[in-house]
Amino acid sequence: MTSQKPIYESICLIGLGLIGSSIGLDVHKKNLANHISGYARSEKTRQIAKKIGFVDSVHESAADAARDADLIIICAPVGAMDSIAAEIAPVLKPGATVTDVGSVKQAVIEAIGPHIPQGVNFVPAHPIAGSEKSGPESGFAELFQDRWCILTPVDTATPESIEKLIQFWNALGSSVEVMTAKHHDSVLAITSHLPHLIAYSIVSTASDLEDVTQSEVIKFSAGGFRDFTRIAASDPTMWRDVFLTNKDAVLEMLGRFSEDLSALQRQIRWNDGDALFDLFTRSKETRSNIVEAGQDTDAPDFGRIQIGDKE
Amino acid sequence: MTSQKPIYESICLIGLGLIGSSIGLDVHKKNLANHISGYARSEKTRQIAKKIGFVDSVHESAADAARDADLIIICAPVGAMDSIAAEIAPVLKPGATVTDVGSVKQAVIEAIGPHIPQGVNFVPAHPIAGSEKSGPESGFAELFQDRWCILTPVDTATPESIEKLIQFWNALGSSVEVMTAKHHDSVLAITSHLPHLIAYSIVSTASDLEDVTQSEVIKFSAGGFRDFTRIAASDPTMWRDVFLTNKDAVLEMLGRFSEDLSALQRQIRWNDGDALFDLFTRSKETRSNIVEAGQDTDAPDFGRIQIGDKE
Repeated sequence: MTSQKPIYESICLIGLGLIGSSIGLDVHKKNLANHISGYARSEKTRQIAKKIGFVDSVHESAADAARDADLIIICAPVGAMDSIAAEIAPVLKPGATVTDVGSVKQAVIEAIGPHIPQGVNFVPAHPIAGSEKSGPESGFAELFQDRWCILTPVDTATPESIEKLIQFWNALGSSVEVMTAKHHDSVLAITSHLPHLIAYSIVSTASDLEDVTQSEVIKFSAGGFRDFTRIAASDPTMWRDVFLTNKDAVLEMLGRFSEDLSALQRQIRWNDGDALFDLFTRSKETRSNIVEAGQDTDAPDFGRIQIGDKE
Repeated sequence: MTSQKPIYESICLIGLGLIGSSIGLDVHKKNLANHISGYARSEKTRQIAKKIGFVDSVHESAADAARDADLIIICAPVGAMDSIAAEIAPVLKPGATVTDVGSVKQAVIEAIGPHIPQGVNFVPAHPIAGSEKSGPESGFAELFQDRWCILTPVDTATPESIEKLIQFWNALGSSVEVMTAKHHDSVLAITSHLPHLIAYSIVSTASDLEDVTQSEVIKFSAGGFRDFTRIAASDPTMWRDVFLTNKDAVLEMLGRFSEDLSALQRQIRWNDGDALFDLFTRSKETRSNIVEAGQDTDAPDFGRIQIGDKE
C-alpha cells in the first residue's frame, strides 16, 4: 500500500472496538490523517488502544477527543449515540464532519441529528463489513477492503463534506453507495438484521432440546449449524440496539420469512419434492451471484479446512 | 502422512461426487486399500474420475464395480439407494461390508437393508463433513480431517466389520461415534437439516422483495446474509431427499424453532431489550464451545478476508 496525502488533518474515533480499531490501523497504514485522537468509555479499552497504538492520543472524555478534529467517527452502539452527540456538540469545530458506523440509520439520525450545531456537517455512514469479533484487539486494517459502505447524508451536509467522506471510505478499500436512511434500514433488515435474528433464534432452539445433548450439537455442528453460530457470536449490546431501533423493518422482514418458512414446511409435510428441488436450485444461483460479486470467498467450506496445515 | 498397511484389500465407491472423490483421494494418499473401483451414473462423471485418478478402475455398472470388493461405499443421494442396493446385492462377496454416507439413517436402512444378503455386513455411516461444493472435481483429501463420522450399524453386522469401518474412518482423520439410526436422525435434524432449511427459506424471502433489489441483497450480503447462502448452495437433489426422508424429525425441530422465533418477535415488538441481551449473550457461549471443540475456525470472518493477499 503506497502512502498518500492525508484526506483529513485530524480524525477522532469515539469508541475503540472492532470498527474503531480497524479504522485506526488502516488510517495509519495509508497515512489518511496526520493525527488520530481516541476515546472509549472503558479505561481498559483506552489502555489497550494506547498499547496497540492505533490512535495517536487517547483522551479521558469524548469531548476532549473531539475538540479540533476535522472528522469525528462515532463507533459506539446506537443506544449510546444520543448522549455522545450531546457531549461533543459544544466543542465541534465549524466545518467539521460528524459521521458514525451504526447498523441502523434512521434511529442514528434521530439520536445525533438534533445535537449537530450549525456549520457542522453530519453524514451518517454504515460500513458493511462483518466480523463476529469485538473489542480493540480484534481490529485489522483489511476489514473494509473490497466491502461496501453506505452513506445516508442529511440535507444540511455540504456536497464537499460528503465527497470527502466518500474519498475516505474509498481509501479504506470500500465502494460507497449513497441512499436514504429509510431505504438503508430496509436493505439491512433483510441482508443483516434478519439473518442475525434467525441465527440467535436457532442457537436458542438447539440449547433447549431434551433428546439431543449440547455436546452432540457442538460435535456435529459442521453439518451446517456452526455457520449460524458465527454471526450469533456478535456483540450483544450492539445487536439489542439494532433490533430495538430498526423494529418496523425487522418485523416486516420477519413476517415475510415466517410465511416462506411455513410454505416450505407444508411442502415437506405433503412430500412435494419438485417444489423443494426448484427452490433449492434457485438458491444455488443467489450464492453464485454473491461469490461473483466478490462478497464471499469461493474456497470450499470458506477455507475452514486448512489444507496442508495438518501434520 | 506416512503410508500404512491397507485396511481393506479393495474398496468400491458407488457415486463419485464430493464425498466419493474425497474418500478416493485420501485412500490413495494414505494407502488404505490396494484397489479402488468406482461407478457413477453419469458418463461425464466417470470420465472425470478416470482423468483425476482417484479410483483405480471405473465401471459401466454399479454391479461391475461392487463385484469382489471388500468395502462398498454408496455415496449417492438417499433416493437412489434402493435401486443401487437391489442391483449390487447379487454380486456381493460373503464377508463384505456395505456402508453409505447418507445424511439420514433410518430411511437408508429401510432402502438398503432388505437387499443385503446373509453373510454380508451392513454398517450405515454418515461423515459430518460439510462443503457446499458438489461433483467429482470438488473433492479433497482433507475433507474428513478433524471431523466426526457417525455409524448406525444394524444388528446383523459382525463386531469385526464395525471395528474395521471405525478404523477406516479414523484413518481418514475422523473421530467415530456409534448411535442408533433414530437418534442420529434427531441430532442431524437440528445440527444440519434445520439450518439448511432455514438458509433455503431466507434466500427465497430475499428474492421476493419489492423495495429492495436483488443487486442490493448481493452487494450488501457481507452483513450476515452470505453466511446463509453458503449452505443454501448445497446439492438440490441430495437435500430434497433429506427433507423427504427425515420428515418427522425435521418438522419437529422446525416447530420448536418457529416457537422460539415468535418469542423473539414478541420481545422486539414490546421493546424487551433485557431479554434480547440475555439471549444474545448466551449464544456467544455456544459459539465459543464450537470453536473450542475444533469444529470451526477462530479466524475472524472465517478467514474470508485474505489478509495480505491484496496489492
